[in-house]
Amino acid sequence: MSAPALSVILDGDPGLDDAVAWLLALASPELDVLAVTTVHGNVPLNLTTRNAGVVLALAKSTVPYHAGADRPLLRAGLTAASVHGDTGLPAGGLSESTRPPAPEHAVQTLISVVRARPGEVTVIATGPLTNVALAFRLAPELPGLLREVVWMGGSTAQGNRTPAAEFNALADPHAARIVFESGVPLRMVGLNVTMQCIATPERVQALRDLGNRAGAVSAELLTFYAGVYREKYGLSGGALHDPLAVAAVIWPELLTWAEMDVQVEVQDGANVGRTTCDLYGVTHRAANARVAVGVDDPAFFARLLERIATLP
Amino acid sequence: MSAPALSVILDGDPGLDDAVAWLLALASPELDVLAVTTVHGNVPLNLTTRNAGVVLALAKSTVPYHAGADRPLLRAGLTAASVHGDTGLPAGGLSESTRPPAPEHAVQTLISVVRARPGEVTVIATGPLTNVALAFRLAPELPGLLREVVWMGGSTAQGNRTPAAEFNALADPHAARIVFESGVPLRMVGLNVTMQCIATPERVQALRDLGNRAGAVSAELLTFYAGVYREKYGLSGGALHDPLAVAAVIWPELLTWAEMDVQVEVQDGANVGRTTCDLYGVTHRAANARVAVGVDDPAFFARLLERIATLP
Amino acid sequence: MSAPALSVILDGDPGLDDAVAWLLALASPELDVLAVTTVHGNVPLNLTTRNAGVVLALAKSTVPYHAGADRPLLRAGLTAASVHGDTGLPAGGLSESTRPPAPEHAVQTLISVVRARPGEVTVIATGPLTNVALAFRLAPELPGLLREVVWMGGSTAQGNRTPAAEFNALADPHAARIVFESGVPLRMVGLNVTMQCIATPERVQALRDLGNRAGAVSAELLTFYAGVYREKYGLSGGALHDPLAVAAVIWPELLTWAEMDVQVEVQDGANVGRTTCDLYGVTHRAANARVAVGVDDPAFFARLLERIATLP
Amino acid sequence: MSAPALSVILDGDPGLDDAVAWLLALASPELDVLAVTTVHGNVPLNLTTRNAGVVLALAKSTVPYHAGADRPLLRAGLTAASVHGDTGLPAGGLSESTRPPAPEHAVQTLISVVRARPGEVTVIATGPLTNVALAFRLAPELPGLLREVVWMGGSTAQGNRTPAAEFNALADPHAARIVFESGVPLRMVGLNVTMQCIATPERVQALRDLGNRAGAVSAELLTFYAGVYREKYGLSGGALHDPLAVAAVIWPELLTWAEMDVQVEVQDGANVGRTTCDLYGVTHRAANARVAVGVDDPAFFARLLERIATLP
Repeated sequence: MSAPALSVILDGDPGLDDAVAWLLALASPELDVLAVTTVHGNVPLNLTTRNAGVVLALAKSTVPYHAGADRPLLRAGLTAASVHGDTGLPAGGLSESTRPPAPEHAVQTLISVVRARPGEVTVIATGPLTNVALAFRLAPELPGLLREVVWMGGSTAQGNRTPAAEFNALADPHAARIVFESGVPLRMVGLNVTMQCIATPERVQALRDLGNRAGAVSAELLTFYAGVYREKYGLSGGALHDPLAVAAVIWPELLTWAEMDVQVEVQDGANVGRTTCDLYGVTHRAANARVAVGVDDPAFFARLLERIATLP
Repeated sequence: MSAPALSVILDGDPGLDDAVAWLLALASPELDVLAVTTVHGNVPLNLTTRNAGVVLALAKSTVPYHAGADRPLLRAGLTAASVHGDTGLPAGGLSESTRPPAPEHAVQTLISVVRARPGEVTVIATGPLTNVALAFRLAPELPGLLREVVWMGGSTAQGNRTPAAEFNALADPHAARIVFESGVPLRMVGLNVTMQCIATPERVQALRDLGNRAGAVSAELLTFYAGVYREKYGLSGGALHDPLAVAAVIWPELLTWAEMDVQVEVQDGANVGRTTCDLYGVTHRAANARVAVGVDDPAFFARLLERIATLP
Repeated sequence: MSAPALSVILDGDPGLDDAVAWLLALASPELDVLAVTTVHGNVPLNLTTRNAGVVLALAKSTVPYHAGADRPLLRAGLTAASVHGDTGLPAGGLSESTRPPAPEHAVQTLISVVRARPGEVTVIATGPLTNVALAFRLAPELPGLLREVVWMGGSTAQGNRTPAAEFNALADPHAARIVFESGVPLRMVGLNVTMQCIATPERVQALRDLGNRAGAVSAELLTFYAGVYREKYGLSGGALHDPLAVAAVIWPELLTWAEMDVQVEVQDGANVGRTTCDLYGVTHRAANARVAVGVDDPAFFARLLERIATLP
Repeated sequence: MSAPALSVILDGDPGLDDAVAWLLALASPELDVLAVTTVHGNVPLNLTTRNAGVVLALAKSTVPYHAGADRPLLRAGLTAASVHGDTGLPAGGLSESTRPPAPEHAVQTLISVVRARPGEVTVIATGPLTNVALAFRLAPELPGLLREVVWMGGSTAQGNRTPAAEFNALADPHAARIVFESGVPLRMVGLNVTMQCIATPERVQALRDLGNRAGAVSAELLTFYAGVYREKYGLSGGALHDPLAVAAVIWPELLTWAEMDVQVEVQDGANVGRTTCDLYGVTHRAANARVAVGVDDPAFFARLLERIATLP
């Protein structure tokens, strides 16, 4: 890589596909991971933070990690233990981190890291947007200082946690609305594309065949939730949601993007947490996000595999 | 036809695709059209009622037609003049009806016709559901007396009038909610299938080539709104929304159906008028509708053409 | 009375204070009661209709009575059996009516009676507004043909069924919104005034001392719910809600009125059913109702007593 | 004072009655003001922060002051320049502070001060609750560490900015909901009591007659908004909203308190920002606040006057 690496913060709630996503990020020379921040989500905050340490240890990374918000802004907290297991990292033989989380709160880290490098930092958010929203309210200049937020969340079509809402959006719709209305350069990688990227048994086997720890753990994690996807959607494996958001930063050309207005529903009811995407421009509202509307899934998986191969 | 014809009431807001839908119904021996009822919608009630007379005259039908609700239950009225033209029947050389509308209100007609034939009547609704909802509130036994309501409206995916809402649903979401919660046997033919049935230039030419008045008028009407669909969606013609609902009654085998829970959003905001469809059963709520999720479009159009050919 | 009597329709859900209200109306030469219509509310429709017959029989009135809507437009039905008893008329020795309800639906009656006397008819509504709202949707010219709707419902301050909502408003907020937005001349007699008119033990005794059946029954009914008011509000008796609405028509000078904008909340949540009254004109919205903001309670009760005395 | 002084943080948006409130706090030996924090509200944050410096200088106080949130969590910002003037401190001859605000963000200050004195600190909040809510989300243990939050805001009855909502509640209803649902010991001093405490011309004169700067400035500020109250409510002067919240901490016996459930409405519509107070316990929900329901206004003003007299 001759171009300078892109400064990123990984903000998420590992969670098994977060884990694979972060392994992809840590394995990619195009990215300079400045910090890892955790948030409530797939499992409670104490576990997402513990899991962050485990993933970093697995990748032999010394990036600091910081615990963030333990609950959504307004709604009651959600978790997704039925998908991610009780710990969020249901794989055997993982070692606890020997490094504790850094003492600074994730939100302070987001603020200070971005202020230190105006215009340079990309936040790759793969969980509820609570940390990012809190940072925007504490430091109103932040949306103007960020290079970009790339979020795995939402959907232009069907949800998953409810018929209307994707999990990360539903887990803090008020935070998502704050981010979508903030003016920050924003890309959304939603279920409409991530559900096209399936960890089929063949792909899981390919990860296992890499022969390294990272491949073995990834294979085990992705096997864990294959059952849910098979039963509910008739798919042949789990979806690679969060890794696709990391890929969107490294290889934006693998996805098709469209600018549009996205409204996040915060009212209680059947649509709470929905990201209502104006695909056809019928509202004539100015775009507030670039939304992924297509993906070259085979190329994505091939590159993901290649990168996981480089890890310990 | 050896089977006895199915008793139907056509309730709608012609509107150009309503007109083609009604021509299809009137041309089909499988259906015994007992009454036609009109509602506010694509154009104001006085015009949808006038248009009902025109369409019946074109088909040389003597079925009585009745004016119904002139506005939605709660929201301000919508119209769609940009799609349907100022009159709702933008075709040349159409004669006014010489028969005035029948004096009875559409809602009373719905009630009395259904009460007279318990278990036998199907309402094919191709507009906002205001008339049907009012009838259900005035005669609470009606949902149990109807054979079925088949509605063109809603969507399992994107809307058209807004990113979230299809026109007929948005034009009276409270009425739609009343019908979906009523327990009536209900089928929904939404944009997710109707947008697959396009009146391409070739199809329009085929209608014109039929050589009869009904074919010529249908061709002219469908040409009228092709422009809107081309610009907005990049489609090669207008969608055959309402005719597909009639086809769903005559030839249910042309569509694929799935039972599911459908919630109609009535709260103001980005999702008002949305029909939130639980395609994957994530809510575990009992189904309240059978929703069309696939269509054999070529067979549909072939049969539509065949039937229009039998009209004057 | 030299002035001609005012044509009224009594629409309500007896219910014990409805019963006293209707006795007052039937005893008053200023009013010509053209019809009585019933609606769901304090008790289910079959009971409010039965009770209408009982009250009319008690007053030896031959006015026809008509059953109306058995449920709200959209929400699930409420009842108030804890206040009104299981039957809604918890008094001993009442005879069933020997006259059945008239066959015409209450909503049709509202429409036909008002159309027959344009500009002359006042509806005194003492229950949920479902019948009136349905009539307005079926006959959009009705708000312009009515002399007035006078409604016991809502509050400028605290509710009773919830902290925000009065029972009649909560029992069908969508109907109330339709009526408040209809443009009909409208007066609202809410809890803010009716809670000042208490059937104290002395007043109940005064009714009993009248010596007639109507006085005895009124006394018994008002005794029934005194307990609820004592416990909940620390009041010395039940409130004379519905009779005050009838009084507002006969003796408007007994109340103080203020024109203002009233918004009826229909969204689910803590405020559903609230009548938000712009007492100080802060919204600068045009008034849609005249709202009772004060009452001469002693004069009201004195006149009520005088009139009940004239009944059998 | 033999009892040790109570540790307080003053969080507000001066604003003219905030200014008088803070003068009262700074003049009272019962209170040990640890910090002053500012928030958006009556005027924008840069002005409320500037005004905090001015008020502290007027009282010759060296307490540090910290700028906080510049906008509400989700809604668009409100100001009340028509009531508070363009600067929020419309009095002549006020000197700018020679001390700049402290660099730490108000939310961080709230967190660190409270953590340093667990169980000891009372926050007297006289503006929108944005700072407090943000602190609760960043430090979830804070509600358990605070002695109390005493808030001037909300109403058990009519609002002021809208018929339903008091200004501080409407200016950030989501923040208010967070605080009311947090479990923190909470007292609410709303319009229902503060509108009974009027700065009549006689009282304003009494302040002026004190002969000190603080009295003169207070008199001038309270004169400024008398006009608004005269026109809108027919009152003889402006209401002493915020000073009453400070008085509630120093002299709780001057108010009557009732424990109840309070719901803050966050949905858009006529009731957004309303604090729906269950005065009669009809919801049977556990209380989440002690709400002021009565006030001894003459005693309050006498003590306020006495304290202002002690200032420079």
